Amino acid sequence: MTVLEQLGLRAKTAARVLATASTAEKNDALLKIADALLQNTAYILEENQKDLENGRKNGLSDALLDRLALSDARIAGMAEGVRAVARLQDPVGAVLCETARPNGLKIQKVTVPLGVIGVIFEARPNVTSDAASLCLKAGNAVILRGGKEAICSNTAIAAVMRGALEQSALPADCVQLVADTSRESATAMMRLNRYIDVLIPRGGAGLIRAVVENASVPVIETGVGNCHIYVDKDADLDMAAEIVYNAKTSRVSVCNAAESLLLHSAIAEKALPKIKARLDEKQVELRGDERARAICPEIAPADETDWGTEYLDYKMSVKIVDTLDAAISHIFTYSTGHSECIVTENQNTAEQFLNEVDAAAVYHNASTRFTDGGEFGFGAEIGISTQKLHARGPLGLPQLVSMKYKIYGNGQIR
Amino acid sequence: MTVLEQLGLRAKTAARVLATASTAEKNDALLKIADALLQNTAYILEENQKDLENGRKNGLSDALLDRLALSDARIAGMAEGVRAVARLQDPVGAVLCETARPNGLKIQKVTVPLGVIGVIFEARPNVTSDAASLCLKAGNAVILRGGKEAICSNTAIAAVMRGALEQSALPADCVQLVADTSRESATAMMRLNRYIDVLIPRGGAGLIRAVVENASVPVIETGVGNCHIYVDKDADLDMAAEIVYNAKTSRVSVCNAAESLLLHSAIAEKALPKIKARLDEKQVELRGDERARAICPEIAPADETDWGTEYLDYKMSVKIVDTLDAAISHIFTYSTGHSECIVTENQNTAEQFLNEVDAAAVYHNASTRFTDGGEFGFGAEIGISTQKLHARGPLGLPQLVSMKYKIYGNGQIR
Repeated sequence: MTVLEQLGLRAKTAARVLATASTAEKNDALLKIADALLQNTAYILEENQKDLENGRKNGLSDALLDRLALSDARIAGMAEGVRAVARLQDPVGAVLCETARPNGLKIQKVTVPLGVIGVIFEARPNVTSDAASLCLKAGNAVILRGGKEAICSNTAIAAVMRGALEQSALPADCVQLVADTSRESATAMMRLNRYIDVLIPRGGAGLIRAVVENASVPVIETGVGNCHIYVDKDADLDMAAEIVYNAKTSRVSVCNAAESLLLHSAIAEKALPKIKARLDEKQVELRGDERARAICPEIAPADETDWGTEYLDYKMSVKIVDTLDAAISHIFTYSTGHSECIVTENQNTAEQFLNEVDAAAVYHNASTRFTDGGEFGFGAEIGISTQKLHARGPLGLPQLVSMKYKIYGNGQIR
Repeated sequence: MTVLEQLGLRAKTAARVLATASTAEKNDALLKIADALLQNTAYILEENQKDLENGRKNGLSDALLDRLALSDARIAGMAEGVRAVARLQDPVGAVLCETARPNGLKIQKVTVPLGVIGVIFEARPNVTSDAASLCLKAGNAVILRGGKEAICSNTAIAAVMRGALEQSALPADCVQLVADTSRESATAMMRLNRYIDVLIPRGGAGLIRAVVENASVPVIETGVGNCHIYVDKDADLDMAAEIVYNAKTSRVSVCNAAESLLLHSAIAEKALPKIKARLDEKQVELRGDERARAICPEIAPADETDWGTEYLDYKMSVKIVDTLDAAISHIFTYSTGHSECIVTENQNTAEQFLNEVDAAAVYHNASTRFTDGGEFGFGAEIGISTQKLHARGPLGLPQLVSMKYKIYGNGQIR
């Protein structure tokens, strides 16, 4: 058995205990984890300092160093996040339906944990406690694998969590961290079907692509959002400008930020200068088709790659369309299935857009920035699913479970 | 674009139309397909004859030739299967829940089609119409890829179905067959993430393993069932003998057949001869541990591989255990998560088994053979999922859909 297989077996064994743990036992363990994070703040910060020093030596960008950096406040935030998960409803053990068959069999469909969840993530050490607490509350053991940049921080946080679990009714092996941060170990983890039930990648497009391409363990694909806002001919243009401004600029680095603007030709001449004026306040660089550039010649020309690009930056593509169908067709071609929005005062047009556009979240007259577990009222989330299998949109606790059938008979044979 | 990519794009384009087709349109298309299958029986049989001749030339086994062979009755059965799917409830467009957020956003969660489903299957040509009709009713375009042994039959059936679709409101490209039956084409299909949303393999363990290992498209793993029956110390032994006999012998080649028998030591001396006598009627070969062989010395010795083997044959492993926990631990180690059963008159013991055993279907006092879409009341099914993501157990129409969030605002920004 490899080190990773041993770790997998320990996780599967812990998951078996965790699967039938009571809500009170799980909450108690979570609160102990939160306390331990606070009590060990100094130790965690010390280990985090090592990552930061290594990062500076290795020339990490300031943005990456910022993601990596912990502080008293950030650790307090992590602890509060764990407490918030303890307050959420336990998703395990719900009876989804119950049927009696003509032969007398009673079939009950109940929620059960997924089992062992593998989480592969990049530089943010807070993912360690965020992901672990959600997995644990849903009755799942978790195998965490963070980036090498954060290995000291992650190791410290995982050790603190495991120490807290040792004081609880749950096995410490409910939370494990992969110490080996090599690419080979990541690939081996993606193919550990015998012990891992589900893989959730959290990170940039490159990480997610690598997991989707290499994993044989079932994956919940998260993240990439090439989100569009379509301003219809019947739009309230003031509302449109506010929504585009918010969706593009309130936080450019996130997956629910808007990347592309579609304008109906009937209102484009009025709408584009108005929206552009608002985006100019944040120096958003627009890249447009010929018709957009005819209206605002200072817009740079867009090429084919722009339509498919998730900029994650102060950039936005803009295209003029003549019909609702043309807007929907453009989205059909370039959407990543994350979040799409129509701005219109026409209810029929809105309903057609909401029905025909295929994405996790489709908005009428609201910013795409609302695609978020907290904003949807789910509490914490572990990512935004952009695939159609299992769960779509924010992955909260209700999405971190599976189900099974319990069948009650009195000797039925077939 | 490769031929397969072109096919994928056509499927995705057809799926877009199909996603918003009405139930009446889909049912009309299904009934036209059923009629066309009957009207073209002679043509389909002629093409099937070519496959059978090739099969005989290539030395296919009688069992395989039987699976491959169509007849008037089998084609009538296929047509009736399609009609049955038309009668089932449309799973698309159901409102799963609706919430109003404090900021006034109304969030509606609705069922939508998965999109494009790839089905990779082996020798049975009836899968062509079974799978296509289920996918179509759930609003999904389907790309079918059968084995090379059945290529003439599958091509004929797909052509008949597409001909019927041309007379309907739905695009013919809702149903497509991959003509290239090479291994390379199968692998390329498994990695067609841009156009295929979900892959469902239907076939033996080798096919399923190949799909799980090679696919980057999300897979619903189906099929392998190393199913156990545990006869508890408080079991009704007559009931136990009937359930074991039924679960083992009523159809040995299916995934819900029992493969392994666990007996509590307190009743093993009475139970084993009784159950063995019943299994002897069908010449079931038992392979047991030392304690089972001490009771019935004519039982062959089991080795480690027996505990993990899905025989799909008149063979069964048998082991004596001292406790319920030992039975559950054995199942934990060797189960494929398909169907597991306890026979006992003790309700508490039963409930513990049902809660602690992790499988798609866990039975109390009933044969494992009931794990089936029809027996569960789902109508037709496309397979039995043994994974925990998305759906577990029989995959009927309700499992062939995804969901999306429709969000109604009036200018909300974040």
